Amino acid sequence: MENKAIVKNIMKHNNGKISNIYFTACGGSLVDMYPSYYFLQSEAEKVSTGWYTANEFVHVTPKKIGPHSIVFVCSHSGNTPEAVEAAKIAQEKGAFTIGLTFNPKAELLKYSDEKIIYEWGNEDEVVNNPMAIMLDITSQTLDELEGYGKLSEFADGFKRIDTIVTNALAQVQDRTKEFAKKYQNEPMFYILGSGASFGHTYGFAICSLMEMQWLDASPIHSGEYFHGPFEVTDKDKPYIVMESIGRTRPLDERAIKFLKKYGNKIEIVDAKELGLDLIDSSVAEYFNPILFYSVLCEYRAKLADLRNHSLDVRRYMGKVEY
Amino acid sequence: MENKAIVKNIMKHNNGKISNIYFTACGGSLVDMYPSYYFLQSEAEKVSTGWYTANEFVHVTPKKIGPHSIVFVCSHSGNTPEAVEAAKIAQEKGAFTIGLTFNPKAELLKYSDEKIIYEWGNEDEVVNNPMAIMLDITSQTLDELEGYGKLSEFADGFKRIDTIVTNALAQVQDRTKEFAKKYQNEPMFYILGSGASFGHTYGFAICSLMEMQWLDASPIHSGEYFHGPFEVTDKDKPYIVMESIGRTRPLDERAIKFLKKYGNKIEIVDAKELGLDLIDSSVAEYFNPILFYSVLCEYRAKLADLRNHSLDVRRYMGKVEY
Repeated sequence: MENKAIVKNIMKHNNGKISNIYFTACGGSLVDMYPSYYFLQSEAEKVSTGWYTANEFVHVTPKKIGPHSIVFVCSHSGNTPEAVEAAKIAQEKGAFTIGLTFNPKAELLKYSDEKIIYEWGNEDEVVNNPMAIMLDITSQTLDELEGYGKLSEFADGFKRIDTIVTNALAQVQDRTKEFAKKYQNEPMFYILGSGASFGHTYGFAICSLMEMQWLDASPIHSGEYFHGPFEVTDKDKPYIVMESIGRTRPLDERAIKFLKKYGNKIEIVDAKELGLDLIDSSVAEYFNPILFYSVLCEYRAKLADLRNHSLDVRRYMGKVEY
Repeated sequence: MENKAIVKNIMKHNNGKISNIYFTACGGSLVDMYPSYYFLQSEAEKVSTGWYTANEFVHVTPKKIGPHSIVFVCSHSGNTPEAVEAAKIAQEKGAFTIGLTFNPKAELLKYSDEKIIYEWGNEDEVVNNPMAIMLDITSQTLDELEGYGKLSEFADGFKRIDTIVTNALAQVQDRTKEFAKKYQNEPMFYILGSGASFGHTYGFAICSLMEMQWLDASPIHSGEYFHGPFEVTDKDKPYIVMESIGRTRPLDERAIKFLKKYGNKIEIVDAKELGLDLIDSSVAEYFNPILFYSVLCEYRAKLADLRNHSLDVRRYMGKVEY
């Protein structure tokens, strides 16, 4: 796995004296960074971390950014101006920048000490998607820095995840069709999730529904649901809940229990039922979003079909000035 | 100011060896912590920080929490089970816990090394609200730990903020009435904001609209708007934008410019126009949310009046089991 070589390069930077690891990008790419950020928040004993929309990173660059920093920057096109600028600033401050993009000619790569050109579009090999690549590098780096220790469980997880995703996609064919039939005329969705999956809770709202379907959406953390958001719940509002495996599952379960009692339109995507428990329980929760991303792509594809609204159509992005 | 005495106590803990400062609470109280969290993210050179919904903190307690940790826990009632549990866990791990509540008999105080009973309901004295108290303590603590340096600017800001808020509230009387008249029948709002204000962007959505008005709402970071969310923009969708003073103002301005071109229902709450530039520009941005909270309370009050939906009515919270 070439990620090992990248970790080696990281550890050569600043004589291996790394005190923080940052993630910055925009929209869908930012979403893909959340699992790595969440992993460090939870597992790091010393290394600190941050997760920034790129334009805020550019304007409010954390004082911590310096030679002892690793900064991941991801942009699918590789030319998102805010992301390119973020990489430039981080590099100028002496950080080791890791640029991830689908585009080998990306502007982003000019400011990337490490250049990662990822594959895309082949959902059978999710380990080559930026989300998985960053999680792999981050966990290996934490192990080098602090002796995190669960690398073999992680490696085993990466070995299994492609098969789990493939099986899950087969498993959800019928239910995603039913989902689309049932919900095709809904104007707005609430998306719930927790833990490592919260990035994709947000991502499904802003990318899959708002950007690709022009549908209203609102992402809610399952743990926050009972502290305000649940007051809008009724039989008419549709909720999609990502039920994670791992330590935050009780948060999702509690929201689901309530929704089943007071709501009526509830779609539950359960990582356990979809086979994620084949991964060692000490690391499985970090794989939730990899599974959810692929499965939720199936949901949005079926919805797009029935709504006759292509996932690729935009009215503003790349079409008008902004 | 008694906050000084609290900072002294913080610095006595673990012989002043503090390496991280965490914030954990639920809903509106979590929102009130965001400015302090954002301040540390931006200004701290070494101290690390985290901002957690309490139930996630309980289930996924960061490995960093230990004797070198300060953990703020806030609960208005002081009896929110997740918040009480978070304080208990933090204290067990040796962290110095600071509990903030309106209730002198709160369960939370049992697990608080420092007990802060705040005032509430008198909007003329916002410096006594938990948001301001935490920001004051956090900035003073960072100065003790790292020599942050802008304490006189901060003190001057705290001296001015009450007058600024009072004047702003007078200034928005007419426009909040017009807002309510214009938007009283809208079923859903998008709320935009950035920087230190993003907590209240989220908070206005989940507390003021969802919890208190049973209205649908979705919070969007101004910097993220162009990376997905803007595709739903049209002449019919209402947007409330908190236009901050400070380094992230260009992010808000960019969203506003676009909204003015492609949208039609846009309410802009501009911290500069409302007088926040009376505070020194090196720290003014951290005061945005204090101003916005009070001003947005006026917006929601006027909306509640016209909609004949009291801000205090709940259908689930404190009424059913969950």
